[in-house]
Amino acid sequence: LVKREVTRVVTPGTLTDDALLDPRESNYLAAMVLPDTLQPHTPVGLAWADLSTGRFQAAVFPFARLGDELARLQPSECLLGDDQPPPTCPFPPRMMITRRPEWTFARDTSQAVLQKQLQVASLEGFGFDESDMLAIRAAGGILEYLRETQKTSLDHIDRLLPYRSGESLEIDEATRRSLEITRTFRSGAREGSLLSVIDQTITPPGSRLLADWVGAPLTNLAAIGARQDAVELLRNSATVRRQIREELAGVYDLERLIARVTTLRASPRDLAFVGRTLARLPQLKALVAHLRAPLLDDLQTRLDESPALRDLLAAALEDDCPLLARDGNFIRQGFHGELDRLREMAHGGKAWIARYQADQIEKTGIPNLKVAFNKVFGYYIEITNAQKEKTPPEYIRKQTVASAERYITPELKEYEEKVLTADERSKELEYQLFVELRDKTHQFARALRMTAAAIAELDVLAALAQLADRPDYCRPVMTEDQVVEIVEGRHPVLDAILPRGTFVPNDTTLGTDGGLVMLITGPNMAGKSTYIRQVAVLSLLAHVGSFLPASRATIGICDRIFARVGASDELSRGQSTFMVEMTETARILNSATARSLVILDEIGRGTSTYDGISLAWAIVEHLHDQIGCRTLFATHYHELTDLAGSLAGVRNLSVAVREWQDQVVLLHKIVPGAADKSYGIHCARLAGVPRSVNERAKQILAKLEGENLDTEGRPKL
Amino acid sequence: LVKREVTRVVTPGTLTDDALLDPRESNYLAAMVLPDTLQPHTPVGLAWADLSTGRFQAAVFPFARLGDELARLQPSECLLGDDQPPPTCPFPPRMMITRRPEWTFARDTSQAVLQKQLQVASLEGFGFDESDMLAIRAAGGILEYLRETQKTSLDHIDRLLPYRSGESLEIDEATRRSLEITRTFRSGAREGSLLSVIDQTITPPGSRLLADWVGAPLTNLAAIGARQDAVELLRNSATVRRQIREELAGVYDLERLIARVTTLRASPRDLAFVGRTLARLPQLKALVAHLRAPLLDDLQTRLDESPALRDLLAAALEDDCPLLARDGNFIRQGFHGELDRLREMAHGGKAWIARYQADQIEKTGIPNLKVAFNKVFGYYIEITNAQKEKTPPEYIRKQTVASAERYITPELKEYEEKVLTADERSKELEYQLFVELRDKTHQFARALRMTAAAIAELDVLAALAQLADRPDYCRPVMTEDQVVEIVEGRHPVLDAILPRGTFVPNDTTLGTDGGLVMLITGPNMAGKSTYIRQVAVLSLLAHVGSFLPASRATIGICDRIFARVGASDELSRGQSTFMVEMTETARILNSATARSLVILDEIGRGTSTYDGISLAWAIVEHLHDQIGCRTLFATHYHELTDLAGSLAGVRNLSVAVREWQDQVVLLHKIVPGAADKSYGIHCARLAGVPRSVNERAKQILAKLEGENLDTEGRPKL
Repeated sequence: LVKREVTRVVTPGTLTDDALLDPRESNYLAAMVLPDTLQPHTPVGLAWADLSTGRFQAAVFPFARLGDELARLQPSECLLGDDQPPPTCPFPPRMMITRRPEWTFARDTSQAVLQKQLQVASLEGFGFDESDMLAIRAAGGILEYLRETQKTSLDHIDRLLPYRSGESLEIDEATRRSLEITRTFRSGAREGSLLSVIDQTITPPGSRLLADWVGAPLTNLAAIGARQDAVELLRNSATVRRQIREELAGVYDLERLIARVTTLRASPRDLAFVGRTLARLPQLKALVAHLRAPLLDDLQTRLDESPALRDLLAAALEDDCPLLARDGNFIRQGFHGELDRLREMAHGGKAWIARYQADQIEKTGIPNLKVAFNKVFGYYIEITNAQKEKTPPEYIRKQTVASAERYITPELKEYEEKVLTADERSKELEYQLFVELRDKTHQFARALRMTAAAIAELDVLAALAQLADRPDYCRPVMTEDQVVEIVEGRHPVLDAILPRGTFVPNDTTLGTDGGLVMLITGPNMAGKSTYIRQVAVLSLLAHVGSFLPASRATIGICDRIFARVGASDELSRGQSTFMVEMTETARILNSATARSLVILDEIGRGTSTYDGISLAWAIVEHLHDQIGCRTLFATHYHELTDLAGSLAGVRNLSVAVREWQDQVVLLHKIVPGAADKSYGIHCARLAGVPRSVNERAKQILAKLEGENLDTEGRPKL
Repeated sequence: LVKREVTRVVTPGTLTDDALLDPRESNYLAAMVLPDTLQPHTPVGLAWADLSTGRFQAAVFPFARLGDELARLQPSECLLGDDQPPPTCPFPPRMMITRRPEWTFARDTSQAVLQKQLQVASLEGFGFDESDMLAIRAAGGILEYLRETQKTSLDHIDRLLPYRSGESLEIDEATRRSLEITRTFRSGAREGSLLSVIDQTITPPGSRLLADWVGAPLTNLAAIGARQDAVELLRNSATVRRQIREELAGVYDLERLIARVTTLRASPRDLAFVGRTLARLPQLKALVAHLRAPLLDDLQTRLDESPALRDLLAAALEDDCPLLARDGNFIRQGFHGELDRLREMAHGGKAWIARYQADQIEKTGIPNLKVAFNKVFGYYIEITNAQKEKTPPEYIRKQTVASAERYITPELKEYEEKVLTADERSKELEYQLFVELRDKTHQFARALRMTAAAIAELDVLAALAQLADRPDYCRPVMTEDQVVEIVEGRHPVLDAILPRGTFVPNDTTLGTDGGLVMLITGPNMAGKSTYIRQVAVLSLLAHVGSFLPASRATIGICDRIFARVGASDELSRGQSTFMVEMTETARILNSATARSLVILDEIGRGTSTYDGISLAWAIVEHLHDQIGCRTLFATHYHELTDLAGSLAGVRNLSVAVREWQDQVVLLHKIVPGAADKSYGIHCARLAGVPRSVNERAKQILAKLEGENLDTEGRPKL
């Protein structure tokens, strides 16, 4: 008779509670299926699902890419078979590994569980074939896990989408870290990352979609152009854009709302939010209809107004709905005749009880007489022991408690019946009506999901337009040529953080006429690392379809971007700083193509001077002669600047400095030609190194230079 | 009439759900109170609370230490006044900042709210005075926040403890990161950290206490000695230790259980766990009584058996208790007469209903006749429309639904009354008994908390003994002298991870006779960074009271340990890699004392060769001449090895290498004297750099060396 509650098991990857999730980020549960021996090219299966939205994808990758994909997805939990050793690739730091029985990843089990969930006879319709078996097994493992832990409908998971890596710009984990795309390098915080400054979206689903776009930029010229067209149109239509964004501010997170509806965890408030979101659509569609661009036309048709559902929810639900359906009082007066009648009766009954207490106090002369209620006896009259002798004889004693006696009367019981049944029945009926509304909403799930996706896309395009409308942003010209040309480019993060006009813009020319490989020398703190990162970040943003902080730009499509800036070692994996650096460099030398963009910072500094110079020298030669890709190489080895003399495609760049009365002024301006000094000691002084240490370092430097530099100040090396 | 549920607001810092918390880690909610202008020495207030255990502390620190303290505590959420700008210090990556009204940190409000919560007229009894006002304001802000969000009893927060930083070894945030004390440097995972390998504790509270001990090691010789004595005794008493640890395996997380009891969130299962933990105490006390050491004697007296509570819980609760008290069936048969009677009646009634349905089917000849129940009508008989004409005339029709009619009969209603009331009343009574048990447990909160602390301490000491019993661990001799002497020391992490006997032990001698400053040169990958970290980690562990992986060790008490290994930059804070390195170096040069231990790795490599050598040279001189602290300095600047000739306390060390038929064998052995080669190119080959690049680098190196080395292979620099 007492219903046992079914207990849902909550794990990091299956959280759906809004309070514990960052609405701007997806929360993925992943699963891996790995063969026994792992070589870099061994195919491995990876699947990932966001339970809060129903998104579900799977793919087969070469093992060498597994770490990169995990870095892109940042799952909070990952399933792995009992018998499998943890793979030797970098994991996101907070990812929990959950061990699962091997049978949950078995071929037959997985296919069966997926076909049943997705209601298909074969997964081919979603674009999977026999070669994707490892991905399908991983996806099956996820679904089996969700069924075991969630004990609720998973109806919102109705599609499994293949992820095709070749269609997007490849960005490996080290590059993602170096460029601080979604998190800063040192603290790992979102604040200060590229995403945090370019994210002008209004809605959480928009914010999540933008993160997807930035995580996997496009490599198809036409697709990028279509986004640029939509962004440009929205940028130029400031009034319409403002109105669209005002409407977007009034929509709710439809993706997660639908997920809660289909998993039966929706509250009355959730349904009201669905209704209010639908109410915004006519205006939103009308606004988008003003703008003629293929991407926006398509998007407009996907905004489904679902008028029947909208009107139903508007008519049924109060403006301010509770989080718990059992609380009641959320169905509007006038929506349901029987409910109105029951509510009136319950209300009248309660008023009667209050009046009855007043009457009894007057009649008995007991001022603290109370009419109260408990589950066992229902309503009763309580009289404290001090007043006991004033109890009227017609009161029927029911219970003695520590300091009082409890009584009932026939009238009290009669009214109790009325009140209790009316109130309980009204709540019960209200709950039934709620369930009907929820089921009705569930029937619209497909249309709502399509609409949710279109809203998110609109939000992202309008957000990119908002960004593009900042001062001095331009639409980059995209081309298939092997070039990067940027005029007055700025790093988007520093451009946003620093006071307007403080950040010094710089030009970049990589490509046919201007040389393919740039060697950048110059003092510390002058901005070498910032400059090379800026070029990588702007190239990446261009592939997303975004405008760039520059006065003019032409970006040739890349297949991959490699960036290595900053260094760290991994004690527990037995790698020294230098080994990590060389391993990452080797990966670039082995996998970059002529269509790649390579950004390297201070390669070789983790070893002795001569070893470092020799390696850096040979690496530049290889990038130039063998690969021939666009390259920016920042270095403190002034010795390398000689390479510009021997290799046709190599150019020297440096950062301009002005010395003035023992002060060093860093101009942060990149200029042609090699640097002659690096001002490390000056920089140390700025960092707070004691003055005596600094003066002594200057003496030593003077001695070293006197012994080792030729008369023109160039090293004798 | 329907009770509205009070909704608790859940935030990262106020999580108490076991499924979402790592039991081995504390989950702190912090609050900061900062003055308007922040200089390094400005005092700031910091308070922190773990809602899951009731621990609550506060302190005033100089602003320069704020980042270090946050790194030590790793709060998941931090409160900050509305009007305050976020302070410019490094934050833990996942720490959420929650903005709060300024008044919640006001002096008067804070004092009032604290005095009321802690039931004291003044905070002086806890050791706070007027100079701690910033800490008190931060603590008040936390309490006000908890009161607003938790809507439940906070009775378990009954103490506010001052934290005195001078009493422990200071370890700043960069050192914590460099030594990978609680998380690895690169991935931020617990796995692979120092704590993860030395943590041999059995219980979650023990694990949390060990993290506290390692986070704040002792500096008092007697206190360290007392821990060592207890650890040694436990190590030597293998049988007793094993028995103690077996008992510990049967205790539950008393700290968090009590917190749930006092905040009224305990389940029947939680109470049963308290009872089972108490049942272990007599045996645990008896085992500890075997061991005579002051720390263990003290701890034994703090293990409070609370026999009255233990016996009550054992008598009252079933072995397998549910998570929800409303589910019932967790009070033992025979514990409460009235409950047993009600249960029997409910059970009999239900059986009657089943029999009644069978009778009615037989009597009417309707095979699918059903007796069912709903909240509005209670029990009813349902007959489908197809069978409608067989309905007996005495059935009273109550409701028509789509495909059936529903009836009642007088007998049905009569039994309904019996069953319903008996079952509901038994559940209700069981709930009341549960509340009484919970309240009773609550009365024992103080004793249980004392016991919980003693159990945790016992667990940590036994765990350190377990560690000490590993092969080749020794008890270090602690002294006030300025020395570090280690014979055959190993890095605890690599010693645990690598196969037995693989890790090469090394000796260390720092101090009066052997020289204070060690310069370490040698090839990449040979283990220079590992060696210097090993010395810092072993020194730190010695201050915790732990034994060390070495055959012999003498460690002089340090006031601070500074370690800088690895490098990273912070783009959004505008600092280059070199600037970060110099800022951290400056901090050491400005704050180290003769009692400090300093570990520096590759200082100066972020700038040009001559600048770097000059700075490194001057820094070593300063550490040697001005500060005179124990120092290990690893470098690739072979030029620095000349310092051993000019400075009395400087010694050269290097890593031994054997070359054999074009192969390089790294012996990982630290030997006296300077290195002559660094093998960077050999290392690059191992990392997978293409062979052609490597061969070319060798050619360039030969040319450079030919031009720049003297006939003995030493640089001409």
